[in-house]
Amino acid sequence: MSVSPSNGAAGVVLPGHRLELGEEAPLHLDCGVDLAPVTIAYQTYGRLNADKSNAILICHALTGDQYVAERHPITGKPGWWEEMVGPGRVLDTDRYFLICANVLGGCMGTTGPADLNPATGKAWCLSFPVITIGDMVRAQLRLVDHLGIDQLFCVIGGSMGGMQVLDWAVRYPHRVFTAVPIATAARHSAQNIAFAEVGRQAIIADPGWCGGDYPLHDTKPHRGLAVARMAAHITYLSEAALHRKFGRNLQGRELTYGFDADFQVESYLRHQGSTFVERFDANSYLYITRAMDYFDLAADHGGVLANAFRGSKVRFCVISFSSDWLFPTPESRAVVHALNAVAANVSFVEVASDKGHDAFLLDEPEFHATLSGFLDGAAEHRGLPRGDGR
Amino acid sequence: MSVSPSNGAAGVVLPGHRLELGEEAPLHLDCGVDLAPVTIAYQTYGRLNADKSNAILICHALTGDQYVAERHPITGKPGWWEEMVGPGRVLDTDRYFLICANVLGGCMGTTGPADLNPATGKAWCLSFPVITIGDMVRAQLRLVDHLGIDQLFCVIGGSMGGMQVLDWAVRYPHRVFTAVPIATAARHSAQNIAFAEVGRQAIIADPGWCGGDYPLHDTKPHRGLAVARMAAHITYLSEAALHRKFGRNLQGRELTYGFDADFQVESYLRHQGSTFVERFDANSYLYITRAMDYFDLAADHGGVLANAFRGSKVRFCVISFSSDWLFPTPESRAVVHALNAVAANVSFVEVASDKGHDAFLLDEPEFHATLSGFLDGAAEHRGLPRGDGR
Repeated sequence: MSVSPSNGAAGVVLPGHRLELGEEAPLHLDCGVDLAPVTIAYQTYGRLNADKSNAILICHALTGDQYVAERHPITGKPGWWEEMVGPGRVLDTDRYFLICANVLGGCMGTTGPADLNPATGKAWCLSFPVITIGDMVRAQLRLVDHLGIDQLFCVIGGSMGGMQVLDWAVRYPHRVFTAVPIATAARHSAQNIAFAEVGRQAIIADPGWCGGDYPLHDTKPHRGLAVARMAAHITYLSEAALHRKFGRNLQGRELTYGFDADFQVESYLRHQGSTFVERFDANSYLYITRAMDYFDLAADHGGVLANAFRGSKVRFCVISFSSDWLFPTPESRAVVHALNAVAANVSFVEVASDKGHDAFLLDEPEFHATLSGFLDGAAEHRGLPRGDGR
Repeated sequence: MSVSPSNGAAGVVLPGHRLELGEEAPLHLDCGVDLAPVTIAYQTYGRLNADKSNAILICHALTGDQYVAERHPITGKPGWWEEMVGPGRVLDTDRYFLICANVLGGCMGTTGPADLNPATGKAWCLSFPVITIGDMVRAQLRLVDHLGIDQLFCVIGGSMGGMQVLDWAVRYPHRVFTAVPIATAARHSAQNIAFAEVGRQAIIADPGWCGGDYPLHDTKPHRGLAVARMAAHITYLSEAALHRKFGRNLQGRELTYGFDADFQVESYLRHQGSTFVERFDANSYLYITRAMDYFDLAADHGGVLANAFRGSKVRFCVISFSSDWLFPTPESRAVVHALNAVAANVSFVEVASDKGHDAFLLDEPEFHATLSGFLDGAAEHRGLPRGDGR
């Protein structure tokens, strides 16, 4: 039923699985809209075991996608969690069945604002309903149902992926054995909303955005989207990481007394901006950042975060990074305090790292060891055999 | 000799003093250009005493100007350091003679890219030479010479103003009795360059910028400049300040499921952006941020910051704020370490504040008390009588 099942933002054919939700089974959204049809684009790695007890749902971050551990169809780069996923790796494909779906509102195959609205035959653009983290999770549940999985062994993700993890654990606690929210928070802070708003305004300020209707005008707000990405990218790194990586190193031998990229850090940021626009849709960026802004678990539970977790049997492993200033450790600690307040099963590790928020995407041995230990222990509890590769 | 002595970015007549440097006395710039004519627009408060020993030069920050303690001619708002300046205040106008000049490259009367290039009869735009913090200080020296002041009792400023303070103390140590660099650094860090570059790219991405030639095309890159200001403004506040001020408070009673400013912090940021463009020139923003990027005191002294201060008799009071993440305390500490390494006269205070970088502009009692104590002590050493108001 999907109108554009295999075309991404860049018009490239996107490989992988599709689940189509038809008119007969619309997705009920928080804004009140019943959305149909809906396509959910997803990838899997490893094999689902006979009793379907070894499934791990990976939730991707703002600009991530379902190509977790394979060459990206647009950029040609390795998957964003290639370090983590594979035979004998932390997310061991010999042991677990891994699922990752492009989020609702995204631009890599799952229904989003760049897709055609079947009612009009034109791209949704800003008539696409504003979605929430809860809506993304509802779409993922439909996929998990479709795959016949009664309980996920684990739901795991960093940043916005971690918001989905928390939402899963609260919304569908019986469907989740373990939850691993990484570098995340139970709500978007004022500073995070502020940074998201700067990104949105950079896009909206671009005349190529055309009030959101650029898909109808054969233009793209590439310059605004690139600025949004540049601003966001700074927040993903720590000052120490930027200093170590670039310091005040020059591109050439001396200052040019001009506005070209004299400093390596400028060149790097410009590159981040210009490559991003080739693979991402500007309206998706608006919708997905908005979903993050709206996320506030406590607000949905009488303003008391602990109430969200009351009675939960989910085993949590909460992980933060010491130099992450976008989702700093106190945000994770607030989640842990709430879990402790209802005597939930939770372990918490603040990984010492100077790599900033992006540490969850990088080869950070303490992080991998923490996660590995937690998953091994949980797998034993769940009675999952070790992978063939071990 | 200035071609536009009294018109600011907004075309408003700007009150105050002007020093005109003619063709016969050009300003030699770091980039190699001899710039002439040059106008220096400045304000003064209080009276210069008979032996000209009570002058304090105030150096303004990136988007500040010479209207330190009076109604701003464009915005109509109080001066940016009104809290600090006046009879009986920390910068006591009964005791001191205060001077503040709009920086070279600025847009409030001092020569900058929006002014006419006398050689062409057109606005300089991007043909204006790229200037440095040192160039700004050289221009200020000409003003101090013009006023017949042999030694400034104090040079003081926050943020980019603090860079000028450090540059003064290093470049002209005999002309400075005390130096007070506040919330600043001896070099722009990689993260700071990155944020500056995002601002510049937001401006450059605006088609209204016209390759920098907008003054010739009757357009203005208002949207890009507003985005630049919004991004920068976040860096001026702390996460705690944003949380205390706005948290996740809504504008209306509930979420609108749209892209209007649902959250108060969004509305606040948009306001910051839209009011800024009324008073500031986009090309000036490019030039001044570039001057900050280029600032690196150690680089000019063999890579060893201490060498910059060797033999200095200047009395330093270095002040930082605990929640300032744009110019964090370690940057001030590096300056203090360098001063200590050459046995310079320095006191250092990290003021406990949750107000972020902007704390230097705000009513922060510990900051005011620190400054007051230091200036009183120094004035005693210098033999300055107390002000009439005390």
